Amino acid sequence: MITVRPMQRGEGAALLAMVRALAESHNLLHTVLATPEMFEAAMFSEAPIVGTLMAEYDGKLAGCAVWHRSFSTNRGAEVMYLEDLSVLPEFRRRGVARALLKAVARLALSKNYASIYWLMMDWNKDARALYASIGAEIEPGTTFCRIRDDALRALAT
Amino acid sequence: MITVRPMQRGEGAALLAMVRALAESHNLLHTVLATPEMFEAAMFSEAPIVGTLMAEYDGKLAGCAVWHRSFSTNRGAEVMYLEDLSVLPEFRRRGVARALLKAVARLALSKNYASIYWLMMDWNKDARALYASIGAEIEPGTTFCRIRDDALRALAT
Repeated sequence: MITVRPMQRGEGAALLAMVRALAESHNLLHTVLATPEMFEAAMFSEAPIVGTLMAEYDGKLAGCAVWHRSFSTNRGAEVMYLEDLSVLPEFRRRGVARALLKAVARLALSKNYASIYWLMMDWNKDARALYASIGAEIEPGTTFCRIRDDALRALAT
Repeated sequence: MITVRPMQRGEGAALLAMVRALAESHNLLHTVLATPEMFEAAMFSEAPIVGTLMAEYDGKLAGCAVWHRSFSTNRGAEVMYLEDLSVLPEFRRRGVARALLKAVARLALSKNYASIYWLMMDWNKDARALYASIGAEIEPGTTFCRIRDDALRALAT
């Protein structure tokens, strides 16, 4: 009853609903600036670097995985970065996330990517259990850093 | 005496030397599978997703920054990921890393990217001080996850 397929044109609003659901569960809803049109432009451009898989549960949209192309200097090759893995609250604990991860893995191999990486919030015990169960390496010891907006402009001047 | 410029064709071996120096300082030299040819193919393809800035100190190659295109679902737009920032041991503590970061910021703005993000090893106090000094946000609470090679193939089957 769970099926996973690529996002279709016209699903930008559905994707935004899922991005907002994920941001809400991370208390980051105020950071969501995306619009449906921005997603469609990015996903269906001529040479997209980003793609989305949609999961349906009994024919209803239940979750999504947004990935983008990445590059490993150690491998000297492209790898896959998993930006978002989101399951709508009413479909959680039914295997949707696992089905999405399996489909992401198949997609990565079909593109000859030997590795997928992503970031997990430390407090997310359910995510940790799921990732451990699929054989992911969970590596402590790295810290996320970012410079943006005004600070980025200040650095550039 | 510090200049920063894009990597040129023919510098794949020089880049590999710097990637290896960085991997060595992280005890990850055994994970470096890249060759000069792989770097040149990736950097100078028709629509590259990855690019490199080279820093020279008194005309000698001293360090590099490897970045790639990334995508923020919250912004709905491309952002920049800084994959490697490497300064050769004999050129450390002379401002090379800061000059590279400044050049990366300028490049990001020239591409209309509003954000650059990267990962830092927790033990790297020098890096932390540098990133704090340029106005970066340093956010604890995320853990790096990865699935690769045999585990990736197992997940896909």
